[in-house]
Amino acid sequence: MTVESLQDLFLEALKDLYYVEKTLVKKLPKIATLASSSDLRDAINQHLQETEGHVERLDQVFEMIGRKATAKKCDALDGLLKEAESVTGEIEDPQTRDAAIISSAQAVEHYEIARYGTLACWAEDVSNDDVRDLLQATLDEETAADQKLSAIAVSSINQSAAA
Amino acid sequence: MTVESLQDLFLEALKDLYYVEKTLVKKLPKIATLASSSDLRDAINQHLQETEGHVERLDQVFEMIGRKATAKKCDALDGLLKEAESVTGEIEDPQTRDAAIISSAQAVEHYEIARYGTLACWAEDVSNDDVRDLLQATLDEETAADQKLSAIAVSSINQSAAA
Repeated sequence: MTVESLQDLFLEALKDLYYVEKTLVKKLPKIATLASSSDLRDAINQHLQETEGHVERLDQVFEMIGRKATAKKCDALDGLLKEAESVTGEIEDPQTRDAAIISSAQAVEHYEIARYGTLACWAEDVSNDDVRDLLQATLDEETAADQKLSAIAVSSINQSAAA
Repeated sequence: MTVESLQDLFLEALKDLYYVEKTLVKKLPKIATLASSSDLRDAINQHLQETEGHVERLDQVFEMIGRKATAKKCDALDGLLKEAESVTGEIEDPQTRDAAIISSAQAVEHYEIARYGTLACWAEDVSNDDVRDLLQATLDEETAADQKLSAIAVSSINQSAAA
């Protein structure tokens, strides 16, 4: 599509995030099996459930703006996942692999934090409070997931992974 | 290289960020010329100067840990830039293009915030306070740059771009 206004950008970013969330719903179960720390595995599985909720919220947003829910290939996420898989696939030591999983997951969280932050901000000008609140609710969960991963890294993984 | 410890991961992430910063030093001048808002152009040019400083800080970190400064291709940044170029390249309306530039720049900032955050945290276990402080100093500038872009978007761009 031709992008000519903030409304168009908003729709394109929604499609991008729809691809991101749907891809993560498929990828997270595999990532959880690679984690050796039970805290980390639990956090990933909890975030999988949240991610399923994020897809539902995006479905609601598409419906509220009268558009069909559509995913658009996101080169940024694909690059993040390619990098994550190439690093974690090389690591045999469980604690070091856990540290790499957390690092990669936080890079993905920050991609989502950036995009949801932008969308929630744009919603002020191109949509309504209900749409903004849905996007903000997901943004808050992504931010909390990022902080939880930091806490797990510091409390139980990094020191063990430092040789 | 084989990654077997947090020290190895730390070095790999340093090489990743070295590629990121060096690539951005090359890309930011072109991005500044695409911006129509003088506030946005000034912010990008200021961040270009900071980014040159980030390369120097990474040079110092490599030196402090006794390793040759090396860049490693970062698929995540390449994906972010590919996505940024495909979106901004399509837009003729100047305000909408500015909004897209800010959105893309914030996604890159958040990638760096995630990586520097991880590295500063890992430095606690694999390096020393001087290394951590250098990484934290850059992290603080990336965070400030992200906030500045948000402020420019809200104060002078988004409303004009909303058709």
